[in-house]
Amino acid sequence: MDDFTLASNVERRRRIINAAVGKVPADLVFKNASFVNVFTQEIEVADIAVTAGVICGVGSYKGKEEVDCTGKILVPGFVDAHLHLESTLLTPREFIKAVLPHGTTTVIADPHEIANVMGVDGIRYMMQSTQGLPVDVRFMISSCVPATPEDEPGDKLSSWETAPFYNDRRVAGLAEMMNFFGVIDGDEEILRKLELAFDGGRKVDGHAPGLRGNALNAYIASGVSSDHECYDLDEAMEKLRRGMYILIREGTACHNLAALMPLLKSRYADRCMFCTDDKHPNDILGRGHIDYIVKTAIANGVSPGVAIKAASLNPARHYQIDHQGAIAPGYQADLILIDNFDNFDIQRVYKKGVLAFDGEVRTVPKPRIEKALQKKIGNSVHVAPITADNFKHEGDLPIIGLVKGEIISTDEGKAPGIDTSKDIVKVAVVERHHATGHVGVGLLKHYGLKKGAVATTIAHDAHNIIVVGTNEEDMAYAVNELSRISGGIVVVENGETKAELPLEIAGLMTERPILEVNEKLEMAKKVAHRQGVSRSIDPFMTLSFMSLTVIPSLRITTHGVYDMNKRCYIS
Amino acid sequence: MDDFTLASNVERRRRIINAAVGKVPADLVFKNASFVNVFTQEIEVADIAVTAGVICGVGSYKGKEEVDCTGKILVPGFVDAHLHLESTLLTPREFIKAVLPHGTTTVIADPHEIANVMGVDGIRYMMQSTQGLPVDVRFMISSCVPATPEDEPGDKLSSWETAPFYNDRRVAGLAEMMNFFGVIDGDEEILRKLELAFDGGRKVDGHAPGLRGNALNAYIASGVSSDHECYDLDEAMEKLRRGMYILIREGTACHNLAALMPLLKSRYADRCMFCTDDKHPNDILGRGHIDYIVKTAIANGVSPGVAIKAASLNPARHYQIDHQGAIAPGYQADLILIDNFDNFDIQRVYKKGVLAFDGEVRTVPKPRIEKALQKKIGNSVHVAPITADNFKHEGDLPIIGLVKGEIISTDEGKAPGIDTSKDIVKVAVVERHHATGHVGVGLLKHYGLKKGAVATTIAHDAHNIIVVGTNEEDMAYAVNELSRISGGIVVVENGETKAELPLEIAGLMTERPILEVNEKLEMAKKVAHRQGVSRSIDPFMTLSFMSLTVIPSLRITTHGVYDMNKRCYIS
Repeated sequence: MDDFTLASNVERRRRIINAAVGKVPADLVFKNASFVNVFTQEIEVADIAVTAGVICGVGSYKGKEEVDCTGKILVPGFVDAHLHLESTLLTPREFIKAVLPHGTTTVIADPHEIANVMGVDGIRYMMQSTQGLPVDVRFMISSCVPATPEDEPGDKLSSWETAPFYNDRRVAGLAEMMNFFGVIDGDEEILRKLELAFDGGRKVDGHAPGLRGNALNAYIASGVSSDHECYDLDEAMEKLRRGMYILIREGTACHNLAALMPLLKSRYADRCMFCTDDKHPNDILGRGHIDYIVKTAIANGVSPGVAIKAASLNPARHYQIDHQGAIAPGYQADLILIDNFDNFDIQRVYKKGVLAFDGEVRTVPKPRIEKALQKKIGNSVHVAPITADNFKHEGDLPIIGLVKGEIISTDEGKAPGIDTSKDIVKVAVVERHHATGHVGVGLLKHYGLKKGAVATTIAHDAHNIIVVGTNEEDMAYAVNELSRISGGIVVVENGETKAELPLEIAGLMTERPILEVNEKLEMAKKVAHRQGVSRSIDPFMTLSFMSLTVIPSLRITTHGVYDMNKRCYIS
Repeated sequence: MDDFTLASNVERRRRIINAAVGKVPADLVFKNASFVNVFTQEIEVADIAVTAGVICGVGSYKGKEEVDCTGKILVPGFVDAHLHLESTLLTPREFIKAVLPHGTTTVIADPHEIANVMGVDGIRYMMQSTQGLPVDVRFMISSCVPATPEDEPGDKLSSWETAPFYNDRRVAGLAEMMNFFGVIDGDEEILRKLELAFDGGRKVDGHAPGLRGNALNAYIASGVSSDHECYDLDEAMEKLRRGMYILIREGTACHNLAALMPLLKSRYADRCMFCTDDKHPNDILGRGHIDYIVKTAIANGVSPGVAIKAASLNPARHYQIDHQGAIAPGYQADLILIDNFDNFDIQRVYKKGVLAFDGEVRTVPKPRIEKALQKKIGNSVHVAPITADNFKHEGDLPIIGLVKGEIISTDEGKAPGIDTSKDIVKVAVVERHHATGHVGVGLLKHYGLKKGAVATTIAHDAHNIIVVGTNEEDMAYAVNELSRISGGIVVVENGETKAELPLEIAGLMTERPILEVNEKLEMAKKVAHRQGVSRSIDPFMTLSFMSLTVIPSLRITTHGVYDMNKRCYIS
């Protein structure tokens, strides 16, 4: 810390102390507020005084500005303990505007998707684009880039490259270590990443669905300290007993609260926190964010003090975010004003003592981003020249079978080519980071498409272009369209774009506001369904997972159709 | 972290994982052990496997070495959350030998006394002399050196000098901020010390007896996060509600467990931990250490899981000592084997998986200390030539009145000089760090001494020489004796040493083992009492506090008799 910063911190602290002791009025006082004391889980009534962005006193105070809170309840701002910002399709700034009305004031983000597109630069972009926003964005450094050796991502992240991130205060650790087999097998690079995080005094998040017994012991003994992949109580209890923090997840695809609710009614509720992991625009707009988990828990009989603590102090303590997550002197004034626990109507949200939402979101500053980085991030689609010929093939092709409501797939044998009467269309992944010209081609069954093509630059986890079509011409057109708009989602027919959602930021996100994104996305879904895509399938999300080679059975990559069970390519 | 360390950490982690998953036998397995799971506060039964000093698995394991624990209980090693090692009069190595039989495996030490003798070098000595010992010694950097402006210490510790300590992993923060008035007044140096600790990502301990209301708010708003000075439940509850961690103290002079026991029976017991603060040799030998607090709590109806958690996981989490304080995979294998909760007979203690006590303390390595530092620390008494004349005076002198069983004193007016018939003797403080020749003289009542003199280099907080005598010749002899033996405690009569305890390390500690120290100390007390010192007074400890100018009313310093109430010297 340089002398100037030290002097200014001291001066700020003196202002806080002077207001606390009553020498001067506080900047802002919430008069006569009921508030949730997360240390005791009691509801107290007092004036809450705030100065210089910090709660200076709880008691009886006068303020330059006073907010009468009689009959209302003040709770600490909510923390999302694990999410991928990219999944919202929004830039951090637009994401923040979307979640502030729901009381989220801090999130722990894993920039896994963008790291797969542009490695260190992707993470740096996320860090720059979240600086100074009225939601505190902390980072866990993505641990598995690429996710598998089959992936052809835009960039990789070596253990060596993770270390410098731990010099940054906003980096809380190493993100979900999905490769738990690698951990248990003692993979050198993985263990190096773990040890570097510990050396940096940081935490490592886990991701180990279904892992139990001695294999779980081994995973935890590696130092991983949390898990957000518990689907049943038994598994969660075993993990909790062995020392893991349990992140209870309610996202768009995964709903774990109902199963894990009993944890919140136990005396070890302190070992729990909440997360969304992946949440889509329509879901945020419809249900909300962490507030949805809190109020659902309360509605199901969890004590408000416990539910709110799991959404505030517990994650703040675990991720070492000092002096956040509680209403007490010295704590950052991240506050939510609600009417009562039953309605849970969020009336105001304060970040660092500044009103951020009161029915509408207040002005959110525009973060400054390095010019070169901004340019690079907005220009991430680099495809070698593509024509219909690139999707042509000789002989039979393997058929990937979609499964309704799932992201797994089945092996449906082979066929000579597209046959919409049998619900067989062509699917391809086109390398889009370095214009290598790599194109993998296969067939897809049960998608339903009857005309035209659908393509997107969101294709887990390497985020190349995945394209599905009833004819090669439209497939080529769709890919070239994505190239032209620098990424996103397109639905085309007869060489014409029928719907599109540009995702110009790394091909994953857009600077448009959530309402516009949601509208374009829903419209694109409608058009895709109109072109035949089965109503029981999300035309884009389901497609995006068809390139993820960790899920059984057949997958499509830039190198062709991969059989996850046999761990080999087939043709 | 250099490449070599990284590679060796990875290799070690791989061994742990391999043993956890069962590929190879563990180094050590506690078979069929009942153990306290501090995450759930349950008692479980399992094999606890240890490899490379770390618990690798909890379940069913085979080991190269196996310890049958059937019917016995394994608990995590105990943490003393706040103590001054110097108060034991032992070097760290001897202290550790004394507390290992009591299950203490980690202590958070404030080197306040030695820092007053030699500043940064004093702290460096403590850090070097605790390196590699089988008790983990973490440090809080002393915040108040000197304790008051009246003090004439050996060295001072400026805010500037505290900062580099935060580069050391073993430094957990800034020690008890005793000058709470200074905090509330916004003292520049104090606020700088606080901000530097926060900037280093560290905690600041509190010390605020009786502080309540808005003044307490102000103190806590400064960022101080704990308190170990709660004497009653109401005060403790107010501090806990405002976010402080409560350290429940059972030391030699202060006994706070009985009053604070209800905290441990509440749902916010997680906000509590245990400490000894100041504990003398005969007390450690007689009652024990943290184990005494744990077993007393359990005997008074506190759940064993809660009591043990307050002695292990709670302090480890608060002071950010990662992966310590629990029996779970990845946690350091600091373990205590007891027979049952009623007897609480500690049969074995393991530190990092190595047997450290099994009825006797195993070999404790001798820490390496810089030669120059070792020399300096053993040669800390520098007194200008002293004769009886230095204690002579003209006119009347103020009389400091001792109070039985207390460390406060009274103003007893004045007298022309020594008069043992009225129980008035002479008292002086002789500057002993820089041979300045400063000597402050006064009179002392109710001490009881009838012949000779008593002197010690332990004189709070500056640790000059405090000497009491019935004649100036013996006083001078006593001071010169202390100079000759490089510090300690002496009782003299007619120019002859009747008893002594050399404390050659900074005049505060000795390398002798606890039994010898205790024997010499008890003998010295006996001799002092034989020379007349009142039986209701501890001849040395009470004396040591007569120079502490923060306690009312009259005190003696190198500059004379100080009136704490009037905040001035009197003559």
